[in-house]
Amino acid sequence: MLENYKLMIEEGISEIGLPEQPAQLYEPIRYILRIGGKRIRPVLVLLGAELYGEKYVEEALPAALAVELFHNFTLMHDDIMDDAPLRRGVPTVHEKWNTNVAILSGDNLLILAYQELAKVGADRVPLLLPIFNQMAREVCEGQQWDMEYEKHPMIDQAAYLEMIRLKTAVLLGNALKMGAIVGGASAGDAAHLYDFGVSLGIAFQLQDDILDVYGDPTNFGKQVGGDILANKKTILLITAFAQASDVDRQALESWSAVADNGETNLAGQKIDAIRQIYDRAGVREAAEQLKETYIRNAFECLHKLRVSTEKLDKLRVLAQSLLTRNH
Amino acid sequence: MLENYKLMIEEGISEIGLPEQPAQLYEPIRYILRIGGKRIRPVLVLLGAELYGEKYVEEALPAALAVELFHNFTLMHDDIMDDAPLRRGVPTVHEKWNTNVAILSGDNLLILAYQELAKVGADRVPLLLPIFNQMAREVCEGQQWDMEYEKHPMIDQAAYLEMIRLKTAVLLGNALKMGAIVGGASAGDAAHLYDFGVSLGIAFQLQDDILDVYGDPTNFGKQVGGDILANKKTILLITAFAQASDVDRQALESWSAVADNGETNLAGQKIDAIRQIYDRAGVREAAEQLKETYIRNAFECLHKLRVSTEKLDKLRVLAQSLLTRNH
Repeated sequence: MLENYKLMIEEGISEIGLPEQPAQLYEPIRYILRIGGKRIRPVLVLLGAELYGEKYVEEALPAALAVELFHNFTLMHDDIMDDAPLRRGVPTVHEKWNTNVAILSGDNLLILAYQELAKVGADRVPLLLPIFNQMAREVCEGQQWDMEYEKHPMIDQAAYLEMIRLKTAVLLGNALKMGAIVGGASAGDAAHLYDFGVSLGIAFQLQDDILDVYGDPTNFGKQVGGDILANKKTILLITAFAQASDVDRQALESWSAVADNGETNLAGQKIDAIRQIYDRAGVREAAEQLKETYIRNAFECLHKLRVSTEKLDKLRVLAQSLLTRNH
Repeated sequence: MLENYKLMIEEGISEIGLPEQPAQLYEPIRYILRIGGKRIRPVLVLLGAELYGEKYVEEALPAALAVELFHNFTLMHDDIMDDAPLRRGVPTVHEKWNTNVAILSGDNLLILAYQELAKVGADRVPLLLPIFNQMAREVCEGQQWDMEYEKHPMIDQAAYLEMIRLKTAVLLGNALKMGAIVGGASAGDAAHLYDFGVSLGIAFQLQDDILDVYGDPTNFGKQVGGDILANKKTILLITAFAQASDVDRQALESWSAVADNGETNLAGQKIDAIRQIYDRAGVREAAEQLKETYIRNAFECLHKLRVSTEKLDKLRVLAQSLLTRNH
């Protein structure tokens, strides 16, 4: 049943009707939108609207497309900033074309997001635009913190949680909230759905961190231990620094100085050594517990909604499917 | 009297209230807004509103600020793409910080523009947002054509005029149009003001091209002949290619292969030689005539407005001040 909503999004995207020219401005946009993805964020918009009546789903479609276009804009620009060569197995826009093309196409994609948003009813635009703007700024702030923290020796858990809240979670929260507002939800319901989405988003990111090290390698789709090799600050590394013995903490610091492209023996050694430190410090359990706390918080928000329980089924299904991946 | 409007804009900018943190996200925005400029575009928004009643000026301020923030966003990103080291005599954002900072701060500045736009009355937002979006996309398209044409051997006049229309002129046209709409102008008036602004913008860019070669060097503020040294496609070069003798056209092609940083004798020789070709082909006169045509078109649009003539005084003053610079 969620598949129908995903199809609606795909159809909506294909009907945006981008011009052919200038080709270097629009072809990268078609390219990144074709790469696809699970379209979770726009589906959340539609689900938020559906809670208040099936008739609102169609009406919420422009807001859903706006959220998806915005998400793809952040991918295009983040990939430049992170110097990422691949996205879902294909070359990133700045690799396939060049950085200037990725900057300007990304700008245009952000504008296109607003263009879709402008298509929700005139009575809804003044309500949704400030929410969308606030969200967009927070996502930029999250990306900025992420880049700055890369250069920090270590950050604490609170700073990390705030960063992933901004960079990842507010988009999910606002997706639901915007859908709900199209559906005419009360301010209270909109706020609870927002909180649900934010907690879900944080839980999802924590799970992503855990799966990088403990995921099933046959299903994971990317290199297990990739975050370790990239010295990426994850909930695992941050918890290890906080909980490990002095000896293990020094070992973590030594390993972080080992730069490696992941193709030599040293890479395997580094992953093994750090995983053992994680195991000794009980890092996985701590991270799983934190994730569970956010999941619990999320579902508690749903109870506060003035919506009958059976209407929440699809939302639960989507949330569960996000949170039970083992790859 | 226009000075008051400029002050209103400066005050509005200083009251936007950007957060301190993350510093690398907001400091570049404060920096580029401090560099200043003539604030012509936002003043046009206020003038457009004032035509329909003084009371609308204050109401149009958020739209005026949105236009100015958008303009500064384009400067920040264009400077990356054009690899420009300086802007108004000070280092560009990507030079002072780095490219990633300029990308993300620029993104944030574009979002801030929409945040200001959202502050016009709820009855105006649904009218202004689609206009702003369309304008923003056209400016991106203009920048894309500009970058592509740099690699073309030569382009024709029509392509050049369309490029500067998109890159420069639609912003002026839409500034006036948005102000007029805040003031409750008829669709006809809004369209005439748009056409006025677009023609004015094209005339202004043509004049800029002319002044690069024929401006008074003591007042010009930048190196005379800078466009020639950079092999920039201007109305002068394009007209020369169309009108010059075969011998002169070959000379233009030879000179275009001479790369120079402007600090050797060759630079002076190149400027002199190309200026002589321009003189022989009557390029300056042709460009001045074209500029005059756009000025005439612009002022004809003003006659079509359903606004009493004396109300147009400020707009005429601003237009004349733009078009009578000799530097």
